[in-house]
Parts: sequence; C-alpha cells; structure tokens
Amino acid sequence: MKETSRPRPIETVTIVAKRGKPEAAAAARRIARLLRARGLAVGFDRDTARSLGRPRDGRDLGGRGRPADLYVAFGGDGTLLRLARSISAAPRPILGVNLGGLGFLTETSLGEVADVLGEILGGRYSVDRRMGLEVSLVRAGRTVMRQTILNDVVINKSALARIIDLGVTIDRQFVSTYKADGLIVATPTGSTAYSLSAGGPIIHPNMEALLIAPICPHTLSMRPLVIPDRSRVEITLRTGDSEVYLTLDGQVGHPLRAKDRVRVRRSRLPILMVRSPRTTYFEVLRHKLHWGKR
Amino acid sequence: MKETSRPRPIETVTIVAKRGKPEAAAAARRIARLLRARGLAVGFDRDTARSLGRPRDGRDLGGRGRPADLYVAFGGDGTLLRLARSISAAPRPILGVNLGGLGFLTETSLGEVADVLGEILGGRYSVDRRMGLEVSLVRAGRTVMRQTILNDVVINKSALARIIDLGVTIDRQFVSTYKADGLIVATPTGSTAYSLSAGGPIIHPNMEALLIAPICPHTLSMRPLVIPDRSRVEITLRTGDSEVYLTLDGQVGHPLRAKDRVRVRRSRLPILMVRSPRTTYFEVLRHKLHWGKR
Amino acid sequence: MKETSRPRPIETVTIVAKRGKPEAAAAARRIARLLRARGLAVGFDRDTARSLGRPRDGRDLGGRGRPADLYVAFGGDGTLLRLARSISAAPRPILGVNLGGLGFLTETSLGEVADVLGEILGGRYSVDRRMGLEVSLVRAGRTVMRQTILNDVVINKSALARIIDLGVTIDRQFVSTYKADGLIVATPTGSTAYSLSAGGPIIHPNMEALLIAPICPHTLSMRPLVIPDRSRVEITLRTGDSEVYLTLDGQVGHPLRAKDRVRVRRSRLPILMVRSPRTTYFEVLRHKLHWGKR
Amino acid sequence: MKETSRPRPIETVTIVAKRGKPEAAAAARRIARLLRARGLAVGFDRDTARSLGRPRDGRDLGGRGRPADLYVAFGGDGTLLRLARSISAAPRPILGVNLGGLGFLTETSLGEVADVLGEILGGRYSVDRRMGLEVSLVRAGRTVMRQTILNDVVINKSALARIIDLGVTIDRQFVSTYKADGLIVATPTGSTAYSLSAGGPIIHPNMEALLIAPICPHTLSMRPLVIPDRSRVEITLRTGDSEVYLTLDGQVGHPLRAKDRVRVRRSRLPILMVRSPRTTYFEVLRHKLHWGKR
Repeated sequence: MKETSRPRPIETVTIVAKRGKPEAAAAARRIARLLRARGLAVGFDRDTARSLGRPRDGRDLGGRGRPADLYVAFGGDGTLLRLARSISAAPRPILGVNLGGLGFLTETSLGEVADVLGEILGGRYSVDRRMGLEVSLVRAGRTVMRQTILNDVVINKSALARIIDLGVTIDRQFVSTYKADGLIVATPTGSTAYSLSAGGPIIHPNMEALLIAPICPHTLSMRPLVIPDRSRVEITLRTGDSEVYLTLDGQVGHPLRAKDRVRVRRSRLPILMVRSPRTTYFEVLRHKLHWGKR
Repeated sequence: MKETSRPRPIETVTIVAKRGKPEAAAAARRIARLLRARGLAVGFDRDTARSLGRPRDGRDLGGRGRPADLYVAFGGDGTLLRLARSISAAPRPILGVNLGGLGFLTETSLGEVADVLGEILGGRYSVDRRMGLEVSLVRAGRTVMRQTILNDVVINKSALARIIDLGVTIDRQFVSTYKADGLIVATPTGSTAYSLSAGGPIIHPNMEALLIAPICPHTLSMRPLVIPDRSRVEITLRTGDSEVYLTLDGQVGHPLRAKDRVRVRRSRLPILMVRSPRTTYFEVLRHKLHWGKR
Repeated sequence: MKETSRPRPIETVTIVAKRGKPEAAAAARRIARLLRARGLAVGFDRDTARSLGRPRDGRDLGGRGRPADLYVAFGGDGTLLRLARSISAAPRPILGVNLGGLGFLTETSLGEVADVLGEILGGRYSVDRRMGLEVSLVRAGRTVMRQTILNDVVINKSALARIIDLGVTIDRQFVSTYKADGLIVATPTGSTAYSLSAGGPIIHPNMEALLIAPICPHTLSMRPLVIPDRSRVEITLRTGDSEVYLTLDGQVGHPLRAKDRVRVRRSRLPILMVRSPRTTYFEVLRHKLHWGKR
Repeated sequence: MKETSRPRPIETVTIVAKRGKPEAAAAARRIARLLRARGLAVGFDRDTARSLGRPRDGRDLGGRGRPADLYVAFGGDGTLLRLARSISAAPRPILGVNLGGLGFLTETSLGEVADVLGEILGGRYSVDRRMGLEVSLVRAGRTVMRQTILNDVVINKSALARIIDLGVTIDRQFVSTYKADGLIVATPTGSTAYSLSAGGPIIHPNMEALLIAPICPHTLSMRPLVIPDRSRVEITLRTGDSEVYLTLDGQVGHPLRAKDRVRVRRSRLPILMVRSPRTTYFEVLRHKLHWGKR
C-alpha cells in the first residue's frame, strides 16, 4: 500500500460539524460560503444541514448518491471517526479540523483551515491511506453485525462484572486465553486512542498492522502484541455469566453473549486522511504527550 | 499497630464454606466433626448450615450473638472477603483455606488444614492485623452508604461509557482530576488484587497505607500513589452523563450519580488473619506471580 | 514518627551553593547579607566560601563544630542530597531553593526565598521529617562502607554487562532472585527520583516505608514492592563475571564484586526539610508530571 | 517480502556449537555423523572444529568460500545471533537447537533435532525471513563502524553516569530528545529480547517494522514506538560528559562520544530461520512468558 497519493481535482465538498457545538456550525457555514465563492458544490450531512437551517443541502453520508471529492469535519476525533465509518464503502479524502485542542485525527486548527483548503484546491496536498478494520460479530454460526472502523474494537466487561475470559486465535492458531477486564484490537491510527491508556505502544499511522492490547490483564506478563495486517483475529467470549460489551471506535456498542465470536481483519478499503501541511505526526505526539518538556 | 499478636484460647469456631461448591461443604463438615471431637463448639454461617442440612447450627455473622473465637473459611479470596466484612465490627481471627489454588488470603490447603488447626488449638500460631478501609458514599450532603472492606474500593465506568472525570483530594488538599476508566483505593492486602492488574505496586500486608491507582488513565504520567494510613481520601464524580459504579471488595456494587462523593479512610478495627505457619508472604508472591522461574 | 514539628529559634545559618553555578553563588551572597543584617551568624560550606572569596567563613559540613540551626541549599536536588548526607549524623532543618526549575526537594524559588526566610525567622514554618536509609556494603564478612542517604540505593550493571542476578531477602526471608539490569531501594522521598523512571509508584514523603523496584526485570511479572520501614533488606550479587556498581543518591559509586552484600535499613535519624509555605506536595507532583494537562 | 519460502535442496551443512559447553560439542559431533551418513558434506565454524579436534573441518563463517546450504546452531539465542551476523552477507537457512530451555530463536530441542533434520532433508520444512537491521556509527562525518544485526541496537549509559540525552529523527523528521538511561532500536525478532524488559510490545517476527523503546525514560509519557520498516532512524548523543555505549545484539560494544550519530535502517538481506514444525510462535510466547497460567 502506498502511504500517500496525489488525489483527483476537487469539485464537490461535504462538510460535517460536531453536533451541539455552535462554533462547529458557524465554522461550517463560513467555510461553505468560502468554497461556494470559489465555484465548488458544497453540501452537509443531514444533521449539520438542519442545524444550519438548510435541510435541502443535506446529504446521506455513505448513501447511494455520488460521494463528494472531499469531506471536511469540524469537531474532535469522534466527529471524524463517525464520518470515516459512514463513507468507508467509498472512501474519499477527509480533512479534520479541530475546534481548539489539537487531535490525532484533527491536526488542522480553525485559524488555518481557510489557507489549508486553498492549498488543497490548488492541488498542493497529499493524502494518507489509513488502514481500517472490518469487524464481524458471529453468534451461533450467523454473522449478526459487520462494520468498518478506523480506531479500535474493544471488548470489555461491565463495571460490576468480574474478570472475563477471552480466547484469542490469530489465523486459526491459538494465542492465549486472556483473563482481563477486556481486550482492544486497534489499527495503527487507534494506537494513540484507548490502547495507549491501556499500556499499548504507539504505532506510526503509515504502518499496516493490528495491535492486540489487553485491558488490566490478570496475568502480569501479558503484553501488547503487534501482528501483520493480513492476520485474522478471532476472539471468543468464554465467560457466560458476565455483562460484556463490544464497542467500535468508542461509539457503537453491542452486548455480547457467551460463545459469541468477534472476528477482526483489515478492511479492504483504506480511510483517506488529508495530511496537514503544517505539522508532522511527531509534532502531534510531542504536543499531546508532553514530550520534550521539563 | 502491632503486626502480629498471640490470641486468646479458642472455644468456639464458626465455619463458612463457599456457596455452590460441594467440596467446600464436605470439608466444612469434616473439619466441624474433628473440632467437635476435641470439645469445641462449632457453628456455621446460615448458608453453609443449610447446605449441610443443619439449619439449627446456623449463625448470623456479624449479628448480635457472641462472636466465635475463630472463623474458618473454605473457598477462595471472595469467600473470605465476604466473611471479613461481615464480622468487621467485632473482628476475630480468620483462617482461610483454599480448595485448590493458593490464594493471597487463603494460604492453607485442604490437606494442611487439620494439622494447622491442631497447632492453632495448641496456641502455636500468630495473627496478622490487616488494615481495612471504611468507605462512605455521600450524596447531596447525606451519607447514603457506609461499609468496611479489606481489599479495595473501585470506582469505574460502565463498558459503554466514555472516560470519566474523578476529582481527588487527600486531607482536603487537591491531588488531581483523574480522567480514566476508573480509580482504585486499596489496602496493602488489596494491592495484590485488582490494583496489580491496573499497574499498581505490591504493598506488604503488614504495612499501614492506602494505595490510589488509576485504571487506564488518559494522562500517561499518572502513577499509583501510596499515602499514609491516616489520610482521608475523597473522590468526587465530576462526570454527569456516564454510568459509573462503586464496587467494594469486588463484590458489592452501587451506581453513582454526578457530584457523588466517595470518602475512604482506614477502618478503626483491623481484620485478623491467622498467619500460615507453612508459608511466607514472599512464597505466595513467588508462586502466584511465577517469580524465580526461567 | 511525627510528620512535622515546630523547630527551635534560629541563630546560625549555613549556606550551600551548587558548584560552578554563578547564579547560585550570587544568591548565596545576597541571602547571607540579608541574614547578617538581621543579626544572624552566617557561614558557608568550604566550596561555597571559596567561590565567594571568603574562605574564612567556610565550615566543615558534618564536622566536629556545632551545627547551624538552619541550612539553605541553592541548586538542584543534587546539591541538597549532598548536603543532607553531610549533616545526617546531626540533622538540622534544610531549606532547598531552586535556580529555575521546581524540584521535588527544592520547592522554593529564588524570587520567594527572602520572604520565606522572613517567615522562618519569625517562627512561622514547619519541618518535614523525611526518612533516610543506612546502607552498608559487606564484603567477605567485613563492612567496607557505610553511608546515610535520602533518596535511593541503586545496584546496576555496566552498559556492556549482561543481565545480573541479585538475591534479595527481607528480614532474612527470601524474596526472589531478581534477574534484571539492576535494583533500586528507595525512600518515599526517592520514589519520585530514579525509581519513577523504572516504573515505581509515588510514595508520599510523609510515609515511612522502603520501596524495592527492579530495573528492566527479565521476569515481566516482577513489580515494585513497598515494605515496612522497619524491614532489613539484604541484596547479594550472585553474578560473578559482570561489572556491577552500587550508587547512592545518584552521586556516590562503588564497584561491586560477586557475593558482595548490600544491606539497607532505615536510618536512625531523619532528614529535616523545611516545608514550603507556598506549595503542597501534590502541586509539585502535578507540575513535574504534567498532570491535569492534556 | 514473503514471510516463508520453500528452500533449495541441501547438500552442505555447517554446524556451530556454543563455546565452552561440552553438551553442545557432543551434540554437534553426533549430528555431524548422522548427516554424513546420509551423504552430506558437513563442516564446522573454526571454534567448534577445534573443540571437536577436527581443525581441518573448520570454515570461516561469512568468509570467501561457498556458504553451506544449511546452518545448525547448538546453544542459546546468543550463539544463533553471532552466527546470523556472520553470514548476513549471504544468508542461508539456520536451524536453532536449544540445550535445555526453549529459546525464541532456538525452538528445537536436542531430543527433536534428528527428526527435524530428517524432515528438512526431505524438503518438508519452511523458512521464516526475519528482518535484520543495518547499523552504522558516524563520528565527525565518517562512518567508523557498520554491522548487520538481528535483534537490537542498544545505546545506554554506564552504571555511574547520569541520565543521557539522545536526539532522535526518523526520515529526517525530529521525533524527540529522549532523556533516559538509554534507547533500544529492535527488529520484530528482537522485540522479545531486551526491549520486553524495558516495557516494549511483542511484535510478531513475520512483521516488517522497527521498534524504538526508551530505557527508564525521565518523561513518563514516553512510550515505545513502532515504525515502518523503510524508516531511517538517526540517534545523536547530545550528552558530552557521560560514558555511553552502543551494543549490538547484546554482544558487541562500542564506546560513544558526544555528537556521535547512530544510524539504523533495515538490512537489505533477511535472516533465514528454519521454522520449527513442532511448535508455533504463540506456543513459545505462552511458555516463555507463563501465559495461560495463574
């Protein structure tokens, strides 16, 4: 997989703003005006369109219509993750704009966005191809859910449950039974999300790999495991009497039952992220993790 | 606090067996017979009495009657923790007997128990005074729950909730706002329970100290904190929109609401544990944590 | 041990400045003048006296003369540690003044020092009694070195050596053989020094405890261990063919030989630290470890 | 890179035995006889040949002669690492045989080796292509050392030195200045060696990636970093007054000077490891790390 690529010319843009954030909506309106003045066709997702009082400009993200050439997300990493999932079947470049705090996925600030869009429209930008994951939930032999995600798949116990047992295989080889609060399977992009709090390593987002990190493992020698992107991971819930949940990108939750199998593999299509021309990945790391201070 | 002490002569014994474990009940019956043959008065907790078909020998643990001189628990650490909480208002020595796997609180095996009881009745034993914690839950200025525990107080979010904010003070001094999956306040005894999985240190059970360990903290530089036993810890739930629970010794759960305050201090009375004459604390550590192998 | 105490009136002060730091010497001179103007007898350690061109005001720290009532250290934690060791046989209150960065032992800044000294001379201050360690090195049955330290005792291998084996006993009970790069025994004060980098917990400086933390242990389940302050720790170097060193407070080094025994116990006398009236311990923690930031 | 491949027919074998281990030499002699009986040409490295009293069968590993079709190493991971470095310019399959303890690189036991060789000679085996690293030491603009290694490049301070500063760039982008005891750059194969003790993740040996793990970093939020195999890492020693060493595969040491640059990139040629038909990588992990035990 090429890590970056020069994309096609941009004629249509869809803008998504974080819900319930007036400054996100205001920025969306301002940028839409600016892009229209340059002759582009601009739409919004349905929620944003409604909050701007322009319901007719609303688009179904990931729906049947022709996708936009560029998507701009105003908000935090959550807004961008939701957008990325929605368009995962027909990926197009996404520009993430933060509303204050620099995010791993939203490197561009409100103050920079007009200039950055100018460069993008002039073709002076590049796109990162981020690896996603395809997750399926198999219950009693039937696939009851399938989803593409960008950050992580988390299986964890409810607050009141006791430790749970998760049997893990990779490419049908038995790895171990994890006795833990839960387990994370993350993409490189997701390695700086929840996995980092659970003790996982940082994986450069241009890598192609899967990361398996236990959450509070009972066995102290259990360590995060990085495996090739072509691996097929299967996690079986061995515990019967506990409330356990499957959470995707920190947003979508499913209750699990005993013997449920969660299968994870890399997704066929990448997520396309406009690379910030203003900052490097390592600058974001240093800033977010307070490196190089003291 | 003296770490160990010679206890008074033993005339009455109460036996507790893990529920739903036939081998625990069988061991309880066998040991009861042996103790009665030596002239001791033997009773059981109500559940064990019922499962042995001797409901009239049942006693209310922690009830109004005179406490036994010795308590014997057959089961895992959970059985012993429940017993210890029940008699916390009038502590008496507890002997923990495991049904197979060596436990941090149940060092004596089924095979050793008859011999060990012989030594105890002969006065050849010592008792560890373990520090407990007194936990109160304060809601809108009112104390709505108060409990004594031996291992740990855990505040954590439900599986589907996002990260929570917990404000912590010690002796009214602000420590930090913990953004995390949760927080553990543990006794030294509890340091080898859940806290160990969350990255906490091992604190020798003869210590008098409180341990505060975050669960998957967002801020990577947050580390477990060991504070004097006289400290008063107060934790305020700052997050309003998440499901959050308070769990005591891994067994008793309470849902928390925004602004709830959890107060933790050492309990006035100790928990008294019969020290195994057959093994040292470090032997248990080496065995349970696979130290000294390879 | 009482954690703080009101000290006696102050008539004599000895000032120590970090070597080779002109701003430390300048501050020492300025503060000496200020204290003399208030009628106090002010001296310096020999090095500082010489660098100020006043060799006759030099004192032997820890020598036979009457100790000063107060010691002021200008510099980093290293300057203060050296001073604390020098006067450990006759401890007197120490005020640590940093030259820029806030230190765990030097909480007072240059800008605050005049005011803080004013409060101290007025009797409005308190003193922390910090636990020290007494370390002895026993070779072939003979004690070849003995020293009092405030932070930590470190045994570690040289850069080119392979993993070393360190046998550890506590109160003559065998704990484990640590296969590691090395081992740290720290006071609570030292828990925020090297031990923190090696994965140790933070122990409140008012605690009385010893901390044993392995450095890069081969056995992944080995965890830092907190033990009672009355414990006697003995570490035996089991490896014969590696270069191994004993380092005290990060400053004094001794090469070790196979079968050498390092014995560590709490020191009889405390180190007395003037508590900053301007900041709490937790403020220092938050500042140094970037807590409460994102 | 293909992860495994079917290799060519085997006609010549070179055997290497761990120095100073009589059982390694005895096994080498026995296996040589067995292979010769099957018509193969068998040689030894010079040391092994001498210790077997057959100096004329000695070969220069990595010398000008035609390399063997198969190499067999009797000993621990160290013996195999030395061999792998010696033949890195013309890689051939290596079979690692342990003398007792299962090793990450020596999965085959003495008891299995005859059968395993039978399968290899019958063509029923596969070969793992393990990524190596090419390390160069650049001093004052000149490359003064260059080496190929399989496990790890370690830069660390001597026992008596203070913390060191290491400036790291990846593909000329500044990452951070690491204040630490040292830094490890490891291959996936090396992730289960020293890096694991320093807190690094486990990287599957079929991955192609570099791992950068700090040793006891001063900044607590510094985490191991996994980067693409095509990355070029440059580490500059910023500290001038400390003894610092560069160690390759735990075996070869070089003193470093201030401003020295250590450059690391993947090696052009792989190391070829015969994959054990008897065990999987995850079995080795479970065994070595005591997973699945309690």
